[in-house]
Amino acid sequence: MPELRKDPILGRWVIIATERGVRPKDYTVTRTQPTEAFCPFCPGNESATPGAVLSVNAEGVSTSEDWAVRVVPNKFPALKIEGDLDKRGHGLYDMMNGIGAHEVIIETSHHDKSLADLSQEEIENVLRAWRDRLLDLKKDARFRYGVVFKNHGAVAGASLEHSHSQLIALPIVPKRVSEEMMGALSYYEFRNRCVYCDIVEQETRSGERVIFETEHVLAIAPFASRSPFETWLIPRAHAPSFEAGSKVIFEEMAQALKTVLCKLKKALDNPPYNFMLHTSPFGDEGLPHYHWHVEILPALTNVAGFEWGSGFYINPTPPERAAQFLRAAEVTA
Amino acid sequence: MPELRKDPILGRWVIIATERGVRPKDYTVTRTQPTEAFCPFCPGNESATPGAVLSVNAEGVSTSEDWAVRVVPNKFPALKIEGDLDKRGHGLYDMMNGIGAHEVIIETSHHDKSLADLSQEEIENVLRAWRDRLLDLKKDARFRYGVVFKNHGAVAGASLEHSHSQLIALPIVPKRVSEEMMGALSYYEFRNRCVYCDIVEQETRSGERVIFETEHVLAIAPFASRSPFETWLIPRAHAPSFEAGSKVIFEEMAQALKTVLCKLKKALDNPPYNFMLHTSPFGDEGLPHYHWHVEILPALTNVAGFEWGSGFYINPTPPERAAQFLRAAEVTA
Repeated sequence: MPELRKDPILGRWVIIATERGVRPKDYTVTRTQPTEAFCPFCPGNESATPGAVLSVNAEGVSTSEDWAVRVVPNKFPALKIEGDLDKRGHGLYDMMNGIGAHEVIIETSHHDKSLADLSQEEIENVLRAWRDRLLDLKKDARFRYGVVFKNHGAVAGASLEHSHSQLIALPIVPKRVSEEMMGALSYYEFRNRCVYCDIVEQETRSGERVIFETEHVLAIAPFASRSPFETWLIPRAHAPSFEAGSKVIFEEMAQALKTVLCKLKKALDNPPYNFMLHTSPFGDEGLPHYHWHVEILPALTNVAGFEWGSGFYINPTPPERAAQFLRAAEVTA
Repeated sequence: MPELRKDPILGRWVIIATERGVRPKDYTVTRTQPTEAFCPFCPGNESATPGAVLSVNAEGVSTSEDWAVRVVPNKFPALKIEGDLDKRGHGLYDMMNGIGAHEVIIETSHHDKSLADLSQEEIENVLRAWRDRLLDLKKDARFRYGVVFKNHGAVAGASLEHSHSQLIALPIVPKRVSEEMMGALSYYEFRNRCVYCDIVEQETRSGERVIFETEHVLAIAPFASRSPFETWLIPRAHAPSFEAGSKVIFEEMAQALKTVLCKLKKALDNPPYNFMLHTSPFGDEGLPHYHWHVEILPALTNVAGFEWGSGFYINPTPPERAAQFLRAAEVTA
């Protein structure tokens, strides 16, 4: 019997096809990377991008040469950094100017290394770059949220092969994050506990959806996974804001991210994927009910009309089976 | 300056790249259709599907031969029709059995005709099949909603080429529809008017986002289109429930659907697309604040990590430009 499962935060129901249990090798998605003749993200080509807003070496020291991580404004930004919001109506509609920041985090100087190929220490540098840029963009009173995300593989929307993530600072809190905040608040008002803390507790105890764990970080296949091999990385202790993460949290999150990405790469033959950092809105960093985490979505199935229109997902691989496959995928982190 | 626009019903913000104004021919999506050696939907192969729950000729008369529209249970259903819901908890999570109906509406007996190629009268037969199946499934007290949708083209998730739509009856109201109901209710409580009626009024008056119109039906590019060439078909007069549609509404909706699909086919070179019928939940057919409509989403852009994670969309073609292109695409309906 297939199951209908409800995400405890968003109230989103998904169909879990428990009987089909589609295996990793059954997903025949296109795994091509975008290719380009000239790479604007490679060392030596720095003049091909707008000037860096952050450029650090492996020790985190600011440098324009021998950089390990480099952050530049997107050359083709979706939003403009300069101007006023000018909030206004248009008949019954609401609108404002498209003000925001759109930055690219070049995660490595090596063109042919994916994020999974970087060392734990190199991934820590990437996390610190996200943090430093979020902290800097928070100083701009026009912004309410910073979306940090990554597209890997052409199918998942990557337009350049050289490994990079992106940051979009917005004057509004995106709908999905607002919904998370509201769902987590409802749970907190009812139970006086953080729903993510409760998830960490229940998943650690049961173990059936655990993919990887360290002392301070848990990687799970969420109970109501909307797509096969969806993975969440959650700090175990209550922590609303990624930017306030301690040294040990960043170390273990980097370790968990590397391990999970390597496991996905091995089990699913380098799948395209998207991930997004879910952290508190700017100015809401101390909430008792919100808990930062990372959501990774391998792009293995087409999101078709049913999902688009209904917000209702069909997942052909139960998360317990997905976790089993990923636990079994041996990697050297 | 790009614009941030808010959907008045869902509160979803989208970035409209007003400066880029990407044109139809700039979208280079894969337009392949799925292909199969044997088609279970073709006349003569009726035994390859489960038995029909509806089979009618062009006059709407029930027949097993020379059928014009045929509805069969999905051979590989996402949900099972038999059993109890058995709602239950699993620690902090909620779940129930995957009970539901999953039917396929074979829209024509002709293998090589797409929905856009059918005559207005043939499309009316398809609408009537949707209605008749919805009315029948409403009799089952376990169900709360019927999602009618269509995937056209392999990229949009179609797995068989022969033109068909699908119906999934669910024991819950899908999240997206609940959100619509709640957003429309908020607007109604504030203004004592239906938000869709207000949209029809404003769009008819301005005309800038109108794609096609008849006396009783309006086709528009919505103000906060989440993807390029998104199109909504809305009956002009207040009508919560598709199933209660009059003869003239079905005639003009079929005409509008055919015209819009032909315009999309012409302007965008037969794009993959998804559409979904948005109608009232079972038992809520008389609401003063909800208004049935059809949402068509051409699948021209990758939905990448940013959109998935944030619920925040970037649309490179402003709806005013999209409407202009589609108005200019001459078709013989």
